Amino acid sequence: MSAHTVLFRQKPRIISTGTVAGPKECAGVVGKYVDKALSDDMFGESTYEKAECKMLAYAIGKAIENADISEKDIDMMISGDLLNQIISASFAARDFDFPFLGVYGACSTMAESLALAAAFIDAGYFNRIVAATGSHFSSAERQYRYPLELGNTRPPQSQWTVTGAGGAVVAKSGGGVAITAATFGKVVDFGISDVNNMGAAMAPAACNTILTHLKDTGRAPDYYDLIVTGDLGALGSRIVKDLTWEKGVDIQPNHVDCGEIVYNVIEDEFQGGSGAGCSAVVFNSYLMDKLRRREINRVLFAATGALLSTVSSGQGESIPCICHAVSVENVF
Amino acid sequence: MSAHTVLFRQKPRIISTGTVAGPKECAGVVGKYVDKALSDDMFGESTYEKAECKMLAYAIGKAIENADISEKDIDMMISGDLLNQIISASFAARDFDFPFLGVYGACSTMAESLALAAAFIDAGYFNRIVAATGSHFSSAERQYRYPLELGNTRPPQSQWTVTGAGGAVVAKSGGGVAITAATFGKVVDFGISDVNNMGAAMAPAACNTILTHLKDTGRAPDYYDLIVTGDLGALGSRIVKDLTWEKGVDIQPNHVDCGEIVYNVIEDEFQGGSGAGCSAVVFNSYLMDKLRRREINRVLFAATGALLSTVSSGQGESIPCICHAVSVENVF
Repeated sequence: MSAHTVLFRQKPRIISTGTVAGPKECAGVVGKYVDKALSDDMFGESTYEKAECKMLAYAIGKAIENADISEKDIDMMISGDLLNQIISASFAARDFDFPFLGVYGACSTMAESLALAAAFIDAGYFNRIVAATGSHFSSAERQYRYPLELGNTRPPQSQWTVTGAGGAVVAKSGGGVAITAATFGKVVDFGISDVNNMGAAMAPAACNTILTHLKDTGRAPDYYDLIVTGDLGALGSRIVKDLTWEKGVDIQPNHVDCGEIVYNVIEDEFQGGSGAGCSAVVFNSYLMDKLRRREINRVLFAATGALLSTVSSGQGESIPCICHAVSVENVF
Repeated sequence: MSAHTVLFRQKPRIISTGTVAGPKECAGVVGKYVDKALSDDMFGESTYEKAECKMLAYAIGKAIENADISEKDIDMMISGDLLNQIISASFAARDFDFPFLGVYGACSTMAESLALAAAFIDAGYFNRIVAATGSHFSSAERQYRYPLELGNTRPPQSQWTVTGAGGAVVAKSGGGVAITAATFGKVVDFGISDVNNMGAAMAPAACNTILTHLKDTGRAPDYYDLIVTGDLGALGSRIVKDLTWEKGVDIQPNHVDCGEIVYNVIEDEFQGGSGAGCSAVVFNSYLMDKLRRREINRVLFAATGALLSTVSSGQGESIPCICHAVSVENVF
């Protein structure tokens, strides 16, 4: 089988980021790193969906502003989200005058959009591209699970969809944080059909892409300061560590999961955070800050997505999952 | 503003295609060009959604077979569809062992996925990529509009979602049909909120991308034998011709719309065909046959998408639309 990893010779840079998160999220690790900490998760809008869209537009606009450039300097935005027909991304794109490339990778969207942006920049097609995604607890909950008004009890294996959005401007040059490689994942389905147990469903996809990346690049896990998964949560993280260990690869010492670390106090969130916004906010605020300060220098950012819908689950299908990964490194 | 068009120096080739369509579609122009003409639009499955997924998997598999290669020769599939969380594409991807890049562009998906595939091949990242999409009348109708059992009367400005799927293998070399350029569209919203009038909503996006393409490439409309839109239908086609004419560009002599030509007898379909499968089937069967026979040599394939959801419409939003275009030419 051919290699699934692209090595970017031009090492496209992440020149800026923009992030926003809800009050519950900002009580945790990302609170002091985000550009905007919301005190109200409605963000002044009349519906959760409109709030989600506004967060995404904010993250895109803020990333552009943080790069000290203007909208006309951007050649394209690459974005997607969890809502049906990715309406957050499409409606956010309406606010801007640059082309829009819509993607769907569920919670893997931040890695997918960064990989595509880096590929387009590396190939010399464009100069500056915004990659962004986000999610909202309330819009995801009522679309994927139950009406919020029902007040359903959540099972212990469940996760809590992050309310937040993050975006990054990828460019030819500027700063020292580069995207040096991307590994595109394939769909992996281990037959799990419990829609409240996303971590277990997604862990095999993460394992597959991480191992593929290490094999394609000839790197050992300790090449990276951190191997970051998107939103496996506490249970899913344990599974991915077991699965890779079974294949003779030990990621335990340097693995961290955005979903596992995003909330300080795990109460209702049980296994931690999830949603496209989870890895988008943690990567673009907390992790990018550590990269910029050179506290860490090499990160494998592997975001996973569960590609189910309420219809597929209703028709008895299991949950196909995917993981895309980008290698983000300081270049000296 | 920067140019939105990428010229592919390596001229990636469309080396093969695979197509399947339902009985109503095969009574029309594509009937004698598709690889498989279904006599039953359930395709042996128990639900419309599963039938849609099976059509997409068939088109992908058939395109690979028609290229006289095997699954292991494919580096990636790029696909999306109209269903929530693009489950047709995700579940079809489960059948194959290559990476999956999920995209969402509604009915613009065929052009979007061809553009991405060509970009990846042109950049030298991969050798062979399948681009594919499809749709199903019954799954789209019950997701976007009303339960089929209601038997709602359809308004005269409505279109009929095509039941069918198409895929193409894009490769470095092989045959004479090449993707020479791609223009990525931006989101255009003229404030139309009638979900039964997609053609009118999408026409301004088509106009924008076609004009951008012609400007970026310095080409006149008559450079192309055909300027093909995806699924504007009869009314939308008239609007796009008017809109471009108002901007001083006359596409009338060589414009054709897949939605307008796909059905022979326009009865219930009113304005013609729509859906991601519409342009996918017409392009990959009928138009590619004419290109291979060199009856036509230069086609601008501009597929449009309406990026709405039932939630966005229910919350009073208008319909943001997009159009991506690829230039497909015989190289001698």
